[in-house]
Amino acid sequence: MNIAIIGLGNIGGSFALAIKENIPDADTYAIDIDNDVLEQAKAQHIIKDGSQDFKDIIPNADLIIFAVYPKLLVQLVKDYAPYLKEGCIITDVTGVKTSIIGEVEPLLPEHADFVFGHPMAGRENRGLEFSSREVFIGANYLITPTPRNREENIEFLKNFVKKLEFGNISVVTPDFHDEMIGFTSQLTHVIAISLINSDDTERNTKKYTGDSYRDLTRITNINEKLWPELFMMNKEHLVKHIENFQTQLDKLNAAIQSDDVGTMEEMMLESTKRYKDLHDIED
Amino acid sequence: MNIAIIGLGNIGGSFALAIKENIPDADTYAIDIDNDVLEQAKAQHIIKDGSQDFKDIIPNADLIIFAVYPKLLVQLVKDYAPYLKEGCIITDVTGVKTSIIGEVEPLLPEHADFVFGHPMAGRENRGLEFSSREVFIGANYLITPTPRNREENIEFLKNFVKKLEFGNISVVTPDFHDEMIGFTSQLTHVIAISLINSDDTERNTKKYTGDSYRDLTRITNINEKLWPELFMMNKEHLVKHIENFQTQLDKLNAAIQSDDVGTMEEMMLESTKRYKDLHDIED
Repeated sequence: MNIAIIGLGNIGGSFALAIKENIPDADTYAIDIDNDVLEQAKAQHIIKDGSQDFKDIIPNADLIIFAVYPKLLVQLVKDYAPYLKEGCIITDVTGVKTSIIGEVEPLLPEHADFVFGHPMAGRENRGLEFSSREVFIGANYLITPTPRNREENIEFLKNFVKKLEFGNISVVTPDFHDEMIGFTSQLTHVIAISLINSDDTERNTKKYTGDSYRDLTRITNINEKLWPELFMMNKEHLVKHIENFQTQLDKLNAAIQSDDVGTMEEMMLESTKRYKDLHDIED
Repeated sequence: MNIAIIGLGNIGGSFALAIKENIPDADTYAIDIDNDVLEQAKAQHIIKDGSQDFKDIIPNADLIIFAVYPKLLVQLVKDYAPYLKEGCIITDVTGVKTSIIGEVEPLLPEHADFVFGHPMAGRENRGLEFSSREVFIGANYLITPTPRNREENIEFLKNFVKKLEFGNISVVTPDFHDEMIGFTSQLTHVIAISLINSDDTERNTKKYTGDSYRDLTRITNINEKLWPELFMMNKEHLVKHIENFQTQLDKLNAAIQSDDVGTMEEMMLESTKRYKDLHDIED
């Protein structure tokens, strides 16, 4: 099987490493705008070969994994479409689904099957040097089939990412995906950015932090070119999640201001219960 | 030196373990309402002896470490005051300072010196079995002297916690402590509780989480008896921090709603800069 990875950054590189480890008989090729990255990956035997010209690679690819920003993905699908191998399977790693599917599917030839997916194993550092196959181990993977997909290709992708050692592999609708991701990933980034930016930088905060502040701000080292795209692509869900969060925040704030211990205790017992559910801890 | 630890829970137990490791010539005694805990700690040689009757221990203690809830701390100081050893040094681990100092200092005999402190090494799990000396290693420690303290006793406490392998030991005013902790610890707990409680529990969220959601909710397994006390003791600072956070959140929310990429990018560049400052990362 010939696999083409488009974009050999952190995620694309992690795919290459995980494939090398877990599917050693596959031949992995890569396309990247940075020739040094391709040379380096080839020298390290992470890929068989790389090229900046997609026509060297795409016509022979049985599986194409797009690991690029959403806007670029749409452009590349347009460029590659006439060159796709008969019956090839395509997938992606985009963090928002409904809008990207709507843009990409009309560009595809009948014979190519794009099964959209989302590995929940992002890392804040960019570039091949931060790639690691370990980040995939046990991580959640979401697959969002559309009516256009062939059943066997959805199965193929499930088995493929299972081999790469992902944990829970869930098949969900694009809209449910976007609702969930808006909550677990996008809302958390909105909160973390707002928290760290609300600091008074005169205070030299780092001398006074415990784990909680470091945990809540770990994701504030954020790719400012990617995330505004993702937020806008999922605006409806995200804004609703922010509102629900604000409702809880207002409730707790009011309880603090009025010494309402009962409401505080109730909210803390509820959060503890939810924490235990999330981590499968028995009472 | 005879050391008395009052309350052999997670933090008190961690002190006992760290003292045993780093100050082996000290004799550590403990008081706890749970006799089983005292027996266990004695059997494991974490303490030399324990008692439920403070009169067995307090009159001989050169250093007393209170590791109990704020309200209980005030009550115990009242009980212990007539029995304190001449010239003893007392400290605590309370997460809010101004109000506790105001309550405790009037109760003290002239000869006893209470130097208030705060190890920033809390853990969400309660009880001796979760104690560990490792949580102290490299952690921040805040000492909040008052005009009543003797200089050599402040120095003593600094050296003492340094021996226990704390990292940054900062001497700050009680009010500045409360401002900082209101931000780095209390605001983060308010946010984490509000986040997890805003989830729709019908969604089975755990199948769709990445690291960010787990990071932002790690502290939601919260002690509902302790934290309302802490929040109310620091209401003024905390409410101000919540307001500042909400201002940033409203700004980002408005930018998302109006496709204002410029503001989003600016906020993300700022958060990335602050992240790097916090972690001493060079650009």
